[in-house]
Amino acid sequence: MPRFALKIEYDGRSFSGWQRQNHAASVQGAIERALRQLDTKIEAIAGAGRTDAGVHATAQVAHVDLAQSWSSFRLSEALNYHLKPDPIAILAVAEVSDEWHARFSAVGRTYLYRIVQRRAPLTLDRGLAWQVPYALDAAAMAEAAGHLVGNHDFTTFRSTMCQAKSPVKTLDAAQVEPTQGRSGPELHLTFRARSFLHNQVRSFVGTLERVGAGRWAPEAVKSALEARDRTACGPVAPPHGLYLTGVDFTPDPFSTESKS
Amino acid sequence: MPRFALKIEYDGRSFSGWQRQNHAASVQGAIERALRQLDTKIEAIAGAGRTDAGVHATAQVAHVDLAQSWSSFRLSEALNYHLKPDPIAILAVAEVSDEWHARFSAVGRTYLYRIVQRRAPLTLDRGLAWQVPYALDAAAMAEAAGHLVGNHDFTTFRSTMCQAKSPVKTLDAAQVEPTQGRSGPELHLTFRARSFLHNQVRSFVGTLERVGAGRWAPEAVKSALEARDRTACGPVAPPHGLYLTGVDFTPDPFSTESKS
Repeated sequence: MPRFALKIEYDGRSFSGWQRQNHAASVQGAIERALRQLDTKIEAIAGAGRTDAGVHATAQVAHVDLAQSWSSFRLSEALNYHLKPDPIAILAVAEVSDEWHARFSAVGRTYLYRIVQRRAPLTLDRGLAWQVPYALDAAAMAEAAGHLVGNHDFTTFRSTMCQAKSPVKTLDAAQVEPTQGRSGPELHLTFRARSFLHNQVRSFVGTLERVGAGRWAPEAVKSALEARDRTACGPVAPPHGLYLTGVDFTPDPFSTESKS
Repeated sequence: MPRFALKIEYDGRSFSGWQRQNHAASVQGAIERALRQLDTKIEAIAGAGRTDAGVHATAQVAHVDLAQSWSSFRLSEALNYHLKPDPIAILAVAEVSDEWHARFSAVGRTYLYRIVQRRAPLTLDRGLAWQVPYALDAAAMAEAAGHLVGNHDFTTFRSTMCQAKSPVKTLDAAQVEPTQGRSGPELHLTFRARSFLHNQVRSFVGTLERVGAGRWAPEAVKSALEARDRTACGPVAPPHGLYLTGVDFTPDPFSTESKS
């Protein structure tokens, strides 16, 4: 049975999250339904990142085993056709080996978090960014974010619902970049790691926002990390500013395959 | 009665257009409803550009006369509160003189048109850009756009429904800029003029797209313009890629006033 890797984009506003649920619209459920139009016997698909309700993706990756062989182009066209009512798009398809696994073969994940700094409510970016009604100190946030990089016990920044065996992870990068968006001045916070704990990025962002607002000193983030205590965390940022923007594999299965 | 200028942003997906209608949601109608929460006797508001259904604005301008005096900050806060369910935001408010008129005092309008070039359907940008499933030749489109700049009889690029007295207008600028968007490679087409005919920008864009796709030579746009014949126009581009991004006044009433 040929195995295919799918690169997936979606607008999280329409879904209760990546993971299939019985009585709620999920991204996984919608893609499995589209796949079943092509192959009635498909099993559950595995995704590289299980995004929460309201969280978006520009490059989620999943894999599926199909009974018959498909060209990458025809498979992405067929899936996009069946996904049409949903804000989900297959950006690329690549045939991969039987051992390749979207979740376990991934060597890195990148998340972007968008904060728009303005007083007026969002319209075009409603549900697509976190709006804060004041200017944030990006330099202080970048300094604070620097304390998070490296190999740490991230208990402070982990949801109490997190099912990971260990709270120890290596954060490879944490960047805070000011940019001008269509809705006003934005901060783009980017985090890269092999893998993340549940709610880790939103816990980072909510805490860094307190630094940007002048309520926490940058060093307070270091102390919070070292406390290894969930109650030392700042507020958790809302889901709708968060985007899964990249999943890394070595080699990249999509580098030579059809892109939509 | 003090007169106030309002700078307005909206997501056109939710509306049948700027202009108030009896049985459809309009931007003008929603703002007048919010204003009536503050002042029961307001008259119809005038907008600088009457955008069609599905067309967005990041800087529409309108004016209203209110019985009582308001600080710019309090007025924008109150309006945004009452507008909350709608994707409409008041970005700035400025008190202006009795003779100032959002439509007649405007000395320029700028429109942006977004085209995303990719095969997969849009998700995050669905309804916010025109998706074409092939790459466009931006240089050829820019050359063709150059033929439109200047004082011309724009009968070719004018809706048969257009109520303007004369088809002669001066197009001050027409630019085609490639850029990388979150959904893939984009072209941003920008048009600036004192005023526009009905459907003029969408007629320009639909025609320029034919040039970008290699179906029309750039010089064919010049011939189409000179034909002064609506049937010489290319297809009209869809509304959802279009944004009213600026209205110019001399002096700018918003330059010294509260911004949200």
